Amino acid sequence: MAIVIPVKDEKLKLFEGVVSGVPHDCLLIVVSNSQRQRVDRFRMEKDALAQYCHFTRRAALIIHQKDEPLAEALGEAGYTELLGDDGLLKSGKSEAMIVAMILAMVARKNYIGFIDADNYFPGSVLEYARVYAAGFSLATSPYTMVRILWRYKPKISAGLYFKKWGRVSEISNRYMNSLISSNTGFETDIVRTSNAGEHAMSLRLAELLPYASGYAIEPQELLSIFEAFGGVLPMAQTVAARHGVEIFQIESRNPHLHEEKGSRHLQEEMLLPALSAIYHSALSDKNIKTSIIKELITQELIEDEKEIPPQPELYKAPRSIDLPKFHEMMADRLEAYSALAVD
Amino acid sequence: MAIVIPVKDEKLKLFEGVVSGVPHDCLLIVVSNSQRQRVDRFRMEKDALAQYCHFTRRAALIIHQKDEPLAEALGEAGYTELLGDDGLLKSGKSEAMIVAMILAMVARKNYIGFIDADNYFPGSVLEYARVYAAGFSLATSPYTMVRILWRYKPKISAGLYFKKWGRVSEISNRYMNSLISSNTGFETDIVRTSNAGEHAMSLRLAELLPYASGYAIEPQELLSIFEAFGGVLPMAQTVAARHGVEIFQIESRNPHLHEEKGSRHLQEEMLLPALSAIYHSALSDKNIKTSIIKELITQELIEDEKEIPPQPELYKAPRSIDLPKFHEMMADRLEAYSALAVD
Repeated sequence: MAIVIPVKDEKLKLFEGVVSGVPHDCLLIVVSNSQRQRVDRFRMEKDALAQYCHFTRRAALIIHQKDEPLAEALGEAGYTELLGDDGLLKSGKSEAMIVAMILAMVARKNYIGFIDADNYFPGSVLEYARVYAAGFSLATSPYTMVRILWRYKPKISAGLYFKKWGRVSEISNRYMNSLISSNTGFETDIVRTSNAGEHAMSLRLAELLPYASGYAIEPQELLSIFEAFGGVLPMAQTVAARHGVEIFQIESRNPHLHEEKGSRHLQEEMLLPALSAIYHSALSDKNIKTSIIKELITQELIEDEKEIPPQPELYKAPRSIDLPKFHEMMADRLEAYSALAVD
Repeated sequence: MAIVIPVKDEKLKLFEGVVSGVPHDCLLIVVSNSQRQRVDRFRMEKDALAQYCHFTRRAALIIHQKDEPLAEALGEAGYTELLGDDGLLKSGKSEAMIVAMILAMVARKNYIGFIDADNYFPGSVLEYARVYAAGFSLATSPYTMVRILWRYKPKISAGLYFKKWGRVSEISNRYMNSLISSNTGFETDIVRTSNAGEHAMSLRLAELLPYASGYAIEPQELLSIFEAFGGVLPMAQTVAARHGVEIFQIESRNPHLHEEKGSRHLQEEMLLPALSAIYHSALSDKNIKTSIIKELITQELIEDEKEIPPQPELYKAPRSIDLPKFHEMMADRLEAYSALAVD
């Protein structure tokens, strides 16, 4: 399994802690979009990772999101939509995740798991990796996804309050469940991890799915699976459809205590892409669309009923990349991305 | 290894979380001094533990500190000093720990580790148990102790502040180090875990040591080892002295985030027994005694230089107990202490 840690100007102590929680046998892939001007934070991350890998004798790749050879290889291999006007990989966690998937494909891994870098507890990082592994062990299909449901997400406000649900998750789960209810005719609350940043996939599933840009990526993964393999719309991929796709939602034992960065405003900005993705799903009917519009007006994220929520940009599935071409262009570079590389 | 969790009216969610962090192969020993009147919290703890053990198929003992047959067996086996005027085991974590050691001796365990029940992160409980095991694996002597040095002990006050040292630990470590410095003639800051509640011992070491009552127990363990095997005073036990006693202080990766119960006042009350224990050690010279007195006056824990800090009460080493007698009297009861016992 490859464990991917997307980083952006995270505190180094947090980053080091998260890295130390990843089991030894996983290939670490760090995709960083930290600043390089003024203070070269990427350099500091690389040094910290190198020191850690040196003493623990383990393997890790670290790559900057604005790495030129990377962008060039992506372009040549036919993945130009990931590149911005400057010819470099676009900023954003979604783009970092897709690149990590491609690197994991090159490294011939079977599984890929994502863990955010802002976690205070190395012990919960270890738990996430073990939960991923537990899900994959339980799976009977090679097309499998594991999503983590946090037991608690404590809020720090004059003491600790052990909150179970974030507001965005709660609303986003509700509409995801409506989508399933209206298509099956049975009401359900089965989806509890619509916005799970902590999740993992078998690469055979990962390479099949299209991914949304920005904050819509996690809910869109579920939507893409429902659309492609749900049996309501025509099946997208017969081999995978025959095996079936398994989704595990597993509750962690540790509370999720992470760096509080998001203002309430940012939180709300996450809700719009999540609900927009559901709105624009081919599985979404008129009732759901209407109630999403009402919700967005209540949340003051759109102004009136005539406004249509923005359709999330969808990147094509990673398996459409010309992998041999990408590999060929990156062959010399891959070693330079090793945490222990001397430059 | 037996893992001991002393409990006293802890929140059930915390207790459950801590229990879930203990590795499956350890024998859990819960010694509870929770209230039984009004609300029977001991009953609730037992139910929670039973449910957990039922689903995870594991072994645990749970015993109330005021259990009558326990007190009777301790008395008959010659350990009357642990009993109060009411004939029952005295209250206090120290007494709970000694009883747990005796139970672990009966269960023929090789190692015993202590973990407090007020920990918010099951993942750090798991780490403590693994750190204990790592220490024992590194040890070359059968007389071994592992003490945990917390990486951080976060304070919650409008955000998280990652504190490294508690005030009591800092002062108590300082005088413990003075004791070593003055006896060896080389200044040192080697002791960093004078007050470590999270610690473990091989039972061969545990049964040799006398234990202090109250908050002096953890620093007194170190003092007892220095006194008995330090080579300055006559050796207490030739077999152990020949093997040598190994003490590991191992830093945890996880921060120690625990229930904040102690007021500043309580914190300071912990300092007096710790410094008193050092004051009354046979290794303590006039200089150390004088500086401890000054410290205690500064901390407003004693009034003037004529006051002598109270000598901690010392219980005799557990190996002095008549174990066959204790075992015989408890033989029928041990099953009733199993978490899965039906009563």
